[in-house]
Amino acid sequence: MEEREISKAVVKRLPRYYRYLGDLLENKVERISSNELSHQMNVTASQIRQDLNNFGGFGQQGYGYNVKYLYTEIGKILGLDKTYSMIIVGAGNLGQALANYVNFEKKGFSVIGIFDVNSRLSGVAVRGIPIRMTDQLETFLQENKVHIAALTLPKTGAEEMAPILVKNGVKAIWNFAHTDLNLPEDVVVENVHLSESLMQLSYNLNHREPQGKE
Amino acid sequence: MEEREISKAVVKRLPRYYRYLGDLLENKVERISSNELSHQMNVTASQIRQDLNNFGGFGQQGYGYNVKYLYTEIGKILGLDKTYSMIIVGAGNLGQALANYVNFEKKGFSVIGIFDVNSRLSGVAVRGIPIRMTDQLETFLQENKVHIAALTLPKTGAEEMAPILVKNGVKAIWNFAHTDLNLPEDVVVENVHLSESLMQLSYNLNHREPQGKE
Repeated sequence: MEEREISKAVVKRLPRYYRYLGDLLENKVERISSNELSHQMNVTASQIRQDLNNFGGFGQQGYGYNVKYLYTEIGKILGLDKTYSMIIVGAGNLGQALANYVNFEKKGFSVIGIFDVNSRLSGVAVRGIPIRMTDQLETFLQENKVHIAALTLPKTGAEEMAPILVKNGVKAIWNFAHTDLNLPEDVVVENVHLSESLMQLSYNLNHREPQGKE
Repeated sequence: MEEREISKAVVKRLPRYYRYLGDLLENKVERISSNELSHQMNVTASQIRQDLNNFGGFGQQGYGYNVKYLYTEIGKILGLDKTYSMIIVGAGNLGQALANYVNFEKKGFSVIGIFDVNSRLSGVAVRGIPIRMTDQLETFLQENKVHIAALTLPKTGAEEMAPILVKNGVKAIWNFAHTDLNLPEDVVVENVHLSESLMQLSYNLNHREPQGKE
């Protein structure tokens, strides 16, 4: 399929469509109307029609969307038809949680290395992958193509590691550290700031429940 | 301070201001100009001025913001001047990672219970908190005031647990499961969908690096 320009707002919504379409596929649903999908996803049918128009994969009026086709096309747009090698820098609970996330592998993200500074973890295996010490990181990057690095370590460690990753060709950083990394423009960074997410929750808790808490 | 109506977009940006102001405070910076903060945060000075105008805490022209005052006021807006009791449902790596996140406690979020279905984890302690079995969850909720429940368990488990939490008075859910929970309107849900975040990363990797990957 010739890829059209897709707006940023639509791109942000794509993973959610992908998830719903994947669930439908698992439940052996072959076609779905925008109204039914709208009901399930709790967004307007007109937004769904507008968004999914980008992919051409809509059936005739009254016939519904071809679930498998749309799922595949959205997967391609998201780059899920390729495979990615990933390393995890920081082998604490969060790093281990990511390594154990089999779901990522199904989608083409394969963890090939886990690193930590804590020598007590040296050689300990997570899902069959031995934890290496971060002083081996640079050599590892020179010997292995790494597409994505997840940073699950404290702020100062992340700020120290990121330039080493970038210098050795890593172009995508999945950053869980509480800091915004300043990296060259051709490096993509996706931040997951857990404490900021928790602050949104406490804000919403306080502003949607005016009767207050004790 | 009389609380003004603050737009959703500003609220989304508040945790990031809060983080930067907290870092400044730690570095004993007492005042900062919007230009300097703009440079550090990589947003325009005029956006900073507009956003922070909501809090009144700006100094005279050329004098800069009072860091501590703004930090405190933003903290109040975010509800961080109160304390919250939190439970974690799902004691896998991710649940344990959240329990170990001391940073949350500093900000007033205190983990008082951890639950799992896996009987092998029964009684194992995480940061001094024994893991309880989920069949004790309802009794626990009746005996303890719980403000926030983090759901770090698979989709079907989350869908099963959420109504029990809501029925027993939990008004805020921090949802890490790959599903959108359908809950009453007075319950606030903050989703952290890790695999969707990873998909955004792969999308950006593919669309910002047109030379492609092997």
